[in-house]
Amino acid sequence: MKQSLLANKTLREEPRDEQSPGAILLIRAGFVEKLSAGLYNFLPLGLRVFRKIEKIVREEMEKIDGQEILMSALTPRENWQKTGRWETFDALFKLKSFDEKEYALAATHEEIIAPLAKKLILSYKDLPLYLFQIQTKFRNEKRAKSGLLRLREFSMKDLYSFHATEKDLNEYYERMIKSYFSIFERTGLREKTFLTFASGGSFSEYSHEFQTLCESGEDIIHICKKCQIAVNEEIKAKTPKCPACGENDFETKKAVETGNIFKLGDKYSAPFDLKFRDAEGQEQNVIMGCYGLGLPRLLGAVAEIWQDEKGLIWPKEIAPFQIHLLNLAKDKKQANELYEKLSNEKIEVLYDDRELSAGEKFAEADLIGIPLRLVISEKTLKEDSVELKKRNEEKTELVKISEILTVI
Amino acid sequence: MKQSLLANKTLREEPRDEQSPGAILLIRAGFVEKLSAGLYNFLPLGLRVFRKIEKIVREEMEKIDGQEILMSALTPRENWQKTGRWETFDALFKLKSFDEKEYALAATHEEIIAPLAKKLILSYKDLPLYLFQIQTKFRNEKRAKSGLLRLREFSMKDLYSFHATEKDLNEYYERMIKSYFSIFERTGLREKTFLTFASGGSFSEYSHEFQTLCESGEDIIHICKKCQIAVNEEIKAKTPKCPACGENDFETKKAVETGNIFKLGDKYSAPFDLKFRDAEGQEQNVIMGCYGLGLPRLLGAVAEIWQDEKGLIWPKEIAPFQIHLLNLAKDKKQANELYEKLSNEKIEVLYDDRELSAGEKFAEADLIGIPLRLVISEKTLKEDSVELKKRNEEKTELVKISEILTVI
Repeated sequence: MKQSLLANKTLREEPRDEQSPGAILLIRAGFVEKLSAGLYNFLPLGLRVFRKIEKIVREEMEKIDGQEILMSALTPRENWQKTGRWETFDALFKLKSFDEKEYALAATHEEIIAPLAKKLILSYKDLPLYLFQIQTKFRNEKRAKSGLLRLREFSMKDLYSFHATEKDLNEYYERMIKSYFSIFERTGLREKTFLTFASGGSFSEYSHEFQTLCESGEDIIHICKKCQIAVNEEIKAKTPKCPACGENDFETKKAVETGNIFKLGDKYSAPFDLKFRDAEGQEQNVIMGCYGLGLPRLLGAVAEIWQDEKGLIWPKEIAPFQIHLLNLAKDKKQANELYEKLSNEKIEVLYDDRELSAGEKFAEADLIGIPLRLVISEKTLKEDSVELKKRNEEKTELVKISEILTVI
Repeated sequence: MKQSLLANKTLREEPRDEQSPGAILLIRAGFVEKLSAGLYNFLPLGLRVFRKIEKIVREEMEKIDGQEILMSALTPRENWQKTGRWETFDALFKLKSFDEKEYALAATHEEIIAPLAKKLILSYKDLPLYLFQIQTKFRNEKRAKSGLLRLREFSMKDLYSFHATEKDLNEYYERMIKSYFSIFERTGLREKTFLTFASGGSFSEYSHEFQTLCESGEDIIHICKKCQIAVNEEIKAKTPKCPACGENDFETKKAVETGNIFKLGDKYSAPFDLKFRDAEGQEQNVIMGCYGLGLPRLLGAVAEIWQDEKGLIWPKEIAPFQIHLLNLAKDKKQANELYEKLSNEKIEVLYDDRELSAGEKFAEADLIGIPLRLVISEKTLKEDSVELKKRNEEKTELVKISEILTVI
């Protein structure tokens, strides 16, 4: 895309009313715009990153047999009353329609999917079943001060699994842990992300969070130095030993919860009478698991972690563009041709074709953080070349224009 | 996809509490599930259709230079107060956060995009600008009885255009009309859809609706027999003549509004002080247009129109799958091989590999309505063939398995 046409204005000043360094850069670079505490609008650059994260998450969920659905965000009071959460779930936004019917904006969807699954699950032959959605969640958060790390409205991937046996749930749970680590790998968060023991509720001893190390995070985790699995504050208070390996030597760090997975048992199937007929014809409660992942939070965590004093540094697979082509030459002919050539190869290029100084273009390119920068100037053209620089490295190299496709 | 794994149960009986024939079939065929009046959950088959419509809409908006963004659905009261619509917009759902801050669930986004655009538009060089989103809208609808044709929550494409001059707005408005007709063409609604004069508010004499003929529609339109442009009830009451050609011979029909486009002038730029500096350095109000399209309504309209007594008949480009492969032979080997072969060619196949009677499989295939049906049975295998039938035709033909890729 030509940058002269891109709906984007970067800011030199830091926004007021924003504390986390990632959110500050996302706003300054024009990825998002703040509407109100915990509410952000995604601008074209930010939405491109968001869509790439969404695509990765969708692909990984489909790899482990998830089928995508889309449930209503506006949900009737009755569903929440069945489980008692209408009264107990603090974060529910509540509202009324004309006819005084009461609704909650779904903060999670167990109360909707359990009755939905009743229509799909009759016998053990219909199990296991894995349904997921990527849908907006609303949460009436008291704290909404950490940029994109804690929002009042955010897109969430939530997968719900349905099983005949606890053993089957346990097996799928392990597949999901691997799947989450694939997502963290592809989004650039793997090295900083730790599987973390958390409270399990009544059905299982533990649930698990995925915690990503981050100075702006609101959580504290304790990483076992031996097995590199972590425990959260609640678990640490209960037990001095690592539940995974039994050692008790921990390193304490700030982190943000970037995912959580939970064995639900029949907590939600029982109140909705979600049963299946087993091979002997007996009715049994379906066993459930749930697996959440907040998409803007992933994006926000990447921005917190992958940055330097000049700006953002996007991991390749979620970068808004793969190449930032800067033209500094008076005659745009060569840059235009290179832009066409790269675009024809389906390479995503942001082409800075504007009439700005080299300094302004360089500063903005660093702020936006596209992985590979190509510069065409009078100097490089004398050698029929472009200057190539990776955002996360200092060194530059000259590459012949004719060889550029091979090099990148 | 193997049908034995698809999260889908078709229903023999008609759902209670549903009046429109399209919605009845969508529920019976397992495309959607009704949660409450005006609220539906999309199941895997329905979501596949929805995503295809979304893709078409996105492609067409990008063809006319739209840049995609994503604005918050939860929106602060202050924005709506600036235009007075906090009080006057009946359909706004309103709610409060912990700290007693008031919000509306956006029923449309003029009040959000106008202040957003202030950050992107400084001078005439930043114009024109075209921003769109595909985002959930919420409307506190009094009537929510027409299946997917009138929802309390629905995904909408809304594009907002920003111009320096009225002339520029008018030119883009004409491009948008063509773009909408491309969308209707690709979704199978073109022949039944009429550009319809509607009330224009204060800035322009008319706005335009796109009305699709449909017995379940809540609107009445009057189609000019000469020029095939329509007027809605409000315009017909004001003027006896066709505003397009001046004739007065109309045909009256029931229809559903499947899109609407509107010249806003400075109605929303003025209250938000959205100005640009012209070539002479003078500040002027930005001129705006807005262009809406409800995605589930398109899906619902297709279901109303493209059906027969046996079920749905999906237009090719938005069908959940392109081919429905039914195996009736005892040995699944041939069908499995054909399924693999078609899948390897990236053809979307729903493969009915289940142990059901031929009658049940045929009935369900007709109900679901995939464009092309392939049947493998003992009989066809004797001739190394499959039986091919289009959903919208009666005739069947035998095609050699070895030639199937060429034929389809």
